[in-house]
Order: sequence, then C-alpha cells, then structure tokens
Amino acid sequence: MEAQETIFVKMALDAWDTQSGRADKLIQSLSDEALAQETAPGRNSGIYLVGHLTAVHDAMIPLLGLGDKLYPQLETIFLKNPDKSGLEKPAVADIRLYWNTVQAVLNNHFVEIKPEDWFKKHATISHEDFLKEPHRNKLSVLINRTNHLAYHLGQMAYLKK
Amino acid sequence: MEAQETIFVKMALDAWDTQSGRADKLIQSLSDEALAQETAPGRNSGIYLVGHLTAVHDAMIPLLGLGDKLYPQLETIFLKNPDKSGLEKPAVADIRLYWNTVQAVLNNHFVEIKPEDWFKKHATISHEDFLKEPHRNKLSVLINRTNHLAYHLGQMAYLKK
Repeated sequence: MEAQETIFVKMALDAWDTQSGRADKLIQSLSDEALAQETAPGRNSGIYLVGHLTAVHDAMIPLLGLGDKLYPQLETIFLKNPDKSGLEKPAVADIRLYWNTVQAVLNNHFVEIKPEDWFKKHATISHEDFLKEPHRNKLSVLINRTNHLAYHLGQMAYLKK
Repeated sequence: MEAQETIFVKMALDAWDTQSGRADKLIQSLSDEALAQETAPGRNSGIYLVGHLTAVHDAMIPLLGLGDKLYPQLETIFLKNPDKSGLEKPAVADIRLYWNTVQAVLNNHFVEIKPEDWFKKHATISHEDFLKEPHRNKLSVLINRTNHLAYHLGQMAYLKK
C-alpha cells in the first residue's frame, strides 16, 4: 500500500501548499503600511500575524526533526506575548524575510521527506504514547498547522482594501 | 495497510471535529445581535458567514454521495450572492437550526463511513480523471472544507467582545 501512503501525503501537502500559496500572495500584495494596520479594530495587526505564523512554522522545523529553529527570537514577541505587549518588533522587511525563509526551508524539506516518514512520531510525543496514539505523527502536525494558517489567513484577508 | 488507512482518516476527522467544535462553541456563545454584526467594518456579517458555511457543508452531502442537500434554498443567498445582495435572509434562529442540523447529519454519516470508502472518488470527478488523480477523493473534500471552515472561523472570532 505504498501508493496509498503516497496519496495521503500528497493530499495533506496539497492543502498546505494551497494555504501557503494564498498567504504568500496576500503578504506580497500588501504594502508595509497595510501590514502595519490592525486586521479589525482592536485586533491583531498584519505584522503581528505574519510574525506569529512565522514563529509557529519555524517551530515545525524541530518538531518534525528537521533541525533547529532559524529565528528563536520570534518566540517571545510573537508566541508568548500579544501584539500590544510593548516589545519591540523586527522591521517589516525583516519579518517578510523571516516568513519567506522559513517557508522555503520547510518546503525544501517537504519535497525530500519520504511518504513513510510522515507517519513517524513527531518530536514532542514519547515513544510510549505514540504506540497508543499513532495518529500523533508528523503528518498530523502538518494538517494542524495548515488549519492554523487558514484561520489567520481569513483575518489577514481583511487588510486588503 | 488497513491500519494506516484508518489512522489517516482519523487524523482528517480529528481536524474536522476540532474546527467544527470551535465553530459550534463560538456560534452558541454569540447572541443574535452579535451574529448580526459585521466581523470587521464593511466585511461579512456573522449571520452571512454561518449561512455560507452551512450552505458549503450542506453541499458536502451530495458531494460525498450521502444523499440530497437539506437546504438547497441557501445556495442563492449564501453561495451565489454576497452579504449585501439585498436578498432576504432566513431568521437567525433558522440559520442556527440549519447549521446544527447539517453538522449533525454530516457527523452521523462520518462515524459510519468505512475508512476505505473515504478513498473513493467524490461525486463531481469523472472515473477517468479519478484514475489519473486518485488524491481527488472524498477525504480531500473533508480536508479542504476543514481549512475553509478554519478560514471563516478566524473571521467570526472577531464577533467576540
């Protein structure tokens, strides 16, 4: 059933590619000024959401056993604290670079990962738990992060005039 | 590899259940007045988005070969036309009922569908195309609709004070 395994992985990667492609297109289409705006009154800014998505996707690198985070400094600003934390954020040009780099690194890995390796355990579940819950594998990380991306993409779409 | 097939279906259904559960919880927590508000200035109202999601999910019933749509009348109002179309919308209480009913009907079917049946073709792809593109199966419909739900859920979250 190697063929079927390949089909599963293709379905999950297609969904990731669709949402990632939409996010790339939206971010590129927005000016720095537009990205600095709140997505709705009193809500997260576009910059915060791009930084947040970048930090979440950067954390996928160690979670999937692909290496270390590229930008661990994003965690405090965009994961552990809210938009109006008062913490200094990187320049918009840098956030764009971080996003593009993390996405490129992930996507380069994704074309190399063998279908069967997606069904192996991710980094934060123990071997014992994985025996009982084999669905908590690397592919489940990809599926969950794709939905998380879609959720915030719906909000970032409000930055378009 | 029957076990692997089952694991993959569980992963996709878990993602659907997560997003659906969040949507249910959010919709129930919002008053009729809150649902009538725009999610952001000039953007879709909560009522429109719940109607839109209901219409999209209702269309999954025939697409997955589970029967006819329950509320075909929603298509014109919530799929083919935008929020400010001027078309009369159902009462909020009815939209809540339609949403709950469609979700219950789908979820009742989902616990009955055998894992291998999720890998069969959906209703709008030909047998010829499906032979070439076996990933365009029923499970791909579920995965795509889950991301679509997450996208609009991110917007509906803005209705919360």
